[in-house]
This record gives sequence, structure tokens and C-alpha cells, in this order.
Amino acid sequence: MNPAEEDDAADRPARTGRRPGQSKAREAILAAARIRFAENGFDKTSIRAVATDASVDPALVHHYFGTKQQLFAAVVELPVDPDLTLGLIDAAPLERLGEAIVTAVVGVWDSPAGPGIVAAVRTIIASGDMSLARTFLLDVVLERIRQRIATPQDDGRVRIGLVASQMAGLLVTRMIIGVEPVASMPLPELAAAIGPTLQRYLTGEIDRPA
Amino acid sequence: MNPAEEDDAADRPARTGRRPGQSKAREAILAAARIRFAENGFDKTSIRAVATDASVDPALVHHYFGTKQQLFAAVVELPVDPDLTLGLIDAAPLERLGEAIVTAVVGVWDSPAGPGIVAAVRTIIASGDMSLARTFLLDVVLERIRQRIATPQDDGRVRIGLVASQMAGLLVTRMIIGVEPVASMPLPELAAAIGPTLQRYLTGEIDRPA
Repeated sequence: MNPAEEDDAADRPARTGRRPGQSKAREAILAAARIRFAENGFDKTSIRAVATDASVDPALVHHYFGTKQQLFAAVVELPVDPDLTLGLIDAAPLERLGEAIVTAVVGVWDSPAGPGIVAAVRTIIASGDMSLARTFLLDVVLERIRQRIATPQDDGRVRIGLVASQMAGLLVTRMIIGVEPVASMPLPELAAAIGPTLQRYLTGEIDRPA
Repeated sequence: MNPAEEDDAADRPARTGRRPGQSKAREAILAAARIRFAENGFDKTSIRAVATDASVDPALVHHYFGTKQQLFAAVVELPVDPDLTLGLIDAAPLERLGEAIVTAVVGVWDSPAGPGIVAAVRTIIASGDMSLARTFLLDVVLERIRQRIATPQDDGRVRIGLVASQMAGLLVTRMIIGVEPVASMPLPELAAAIGPTLQRYLTGEIDRPA
């Protein structure tokens, strides 16, 4: 760093996202968010609290990262915007939700973002700190689906947990271990095979043998 | 090591499993087996080839490790004998195979061996070398089940791959990430919820929505 840059970074706090001080503020926000999400989960973490911890204005957090979900995706270094995938699932009718989840989620894995997702998952599993993985699965990916299937008698938590168990294993066998023929099965075949599993978990009988 | 021990190890090759030279021969066998299994898979690896690579007699491999499956379990540091679990599954009638697999496999995870299994899985996933994980799943755990469900029209490989996808994800969500309520669901409830999924993968219609 030459003296001119040092002066600039020291004199002007990053506000526009274009100053050399930007990377420092960005890193401070990410570090604060990582701790908040891991300790309090997704729902109980606010952009305001992250901004306070990082000693920046909340507007700067939105400016750099967008929504809280997008901030979370940055924390776990997910190379994809979860809102886009969830939008595809939201658009499916309830009775085709299982197939829609397989199609939307595997569609992301099979996209150019796939290798980055595999790297992120491997890092999370190896780290031994599972709180970020839990909050990502339950609060970010599955919460909207849970709200949709919840009834006054059933909050849907067992159901989305079962969905998570099938989809996590599909990720591991298809993308990480590479178990053939599942690893190279075309998406429509996979949706036909696994969609009904998810559909039963979401809307079928799950407390006794089918 | 005192001079008397050193003499003993140098003069007599380990044969009885009680000499100080034992650990060297044992390590050489494990190292040779790790390479053979990773490069050639389970089926194409013979005890004889491992013994040759390790410069020991094949009888010594059997003496230290037992069967080829038990040698494999030692290579991946699995703290459990896969033959015992597979025996439980073999005893189940075909139409209850799904439930039997959940009960037998989750029974092992919930046993005192559970934490060691989780550690082994985490190590394998973090290592980036998936050939041992693949051969363990396909050749050791699932091959006997595949042979049982195979027909002249269907070799069963897609079916056991789907079973692997559900069970791997149950391991990840229940044992590694700890997704509630799946992580603490009693085994009979889990068998009722997930057994039918495996049963459909093994013996049901899988090429079109149920």
C-alpha cells in the first residue's frame, strides 16, 4: 500500500462502495454476520444488529449485500441467490411441490454454480460447526415451504426435516461422492424417482407405512 | 525402546501378532489395502494382492483383519463390523426391506459406535478423495441388497443408488448437521416415515410419479 492510498482509507469512511476502505467495511460486516447467524440463527439476526457489531450504518449492509438472505448466502460463500430458486418452488401447485423442489434445486446444482456449492458444503461439513448449515437449511431454504404446508394440527417441522434428509443425501451422492447411476441421471428421471418421496413427506401420510 | 526389544523386532518377523514387529506389518497391510481399494474398488481387490504389496503372507492379513470386508472397515477406520448390520437386513422379508434397512442402519448410528462413524464420514467428505466412500457404499453396504432385488430386466443399480441418496442424507441431517426434529426422532417413527421411501426405491415404481 502506498502512502496516498493509506491516507485515503484512513480519512474517508467507506460509503459509496467505491473507496479503498470498502473491503475493510465489507469484511467487518461479513465477520459480524457470521457470528450473529451462527449464534442466533437466521430469524433472530437483524441487519441492524450486524451493522452495530460492524460499526457501520445499516444502509451500508444493504448497499453491499442486499437482503438478509443474500447476506447469509455471502456468509456461507454460496455462489447463488437462494431467492431465485425459492421463487421457482413458490410457483408450483401444492400437489406438485415434491417434483418442483427436485427440479429447482438439482437445476442449481447442475448449473455453473454447482462446483462452488459443493465446495461450500464440503467446507461446512469439515468445519465441524454445523450451526450455519442448520440455519441455512431450516430458516432460509425450507421455512417458506414449511409455512405453505403447515396446518393448525401440524406445524410441518417433521415434514421439512424429512425433505432435508432426502435432498441432503441427493447432494452428497450425486455431487460429492458421485454414486452412479444417480450422479449422471437426467433431471427428469430424477424428478420422477424422488419427487414422489418429497411429496409424501410434505403432504402424505408419514406416521405409518404407506 | 530398550536394546533387548530392538533385537527382538529385528531378528524375528511378526507372525503370531504378539511380537513388537506386529505394528509395522499391520501398518504396511493397511497402507497397501488403502491404495488397492481406492484404485481398484472392493471387488477387484484381493487379499493376496494386498499381501504381496505389503510383502507379507496372505495368512497374516486374515490373521490381523479377518475377512476382506473387515479389512475394508479397518481401512476407513469404521468402528463397526458391516457384516453384523447386513445380517439383520438379510433376515428381513423382501416386502419389509425398506423398514429393515432404516432400523438396522440407524440402530448402528444410535449405538456407542455412532460418534466414530460420524468422524469417519466427516473425514472422508473433507478429504476430497471419494473413491473409498463410493466403494464402501456400493460394493460393501449395498451390493448384497442389489443382488437380492435384481431381476433379468433390472440390475437394481438405480434402485440402490436412490436408497443411498436417502440414507446418506439421513446420516447428514440426523448425525452431522443435527436438523431437528429428525435428529432426535425415535427410531420406530423414523422407520415408519422413511421405510416406505426405501421400499418404493427397492421394489416399487420409480420411473414415473407415484
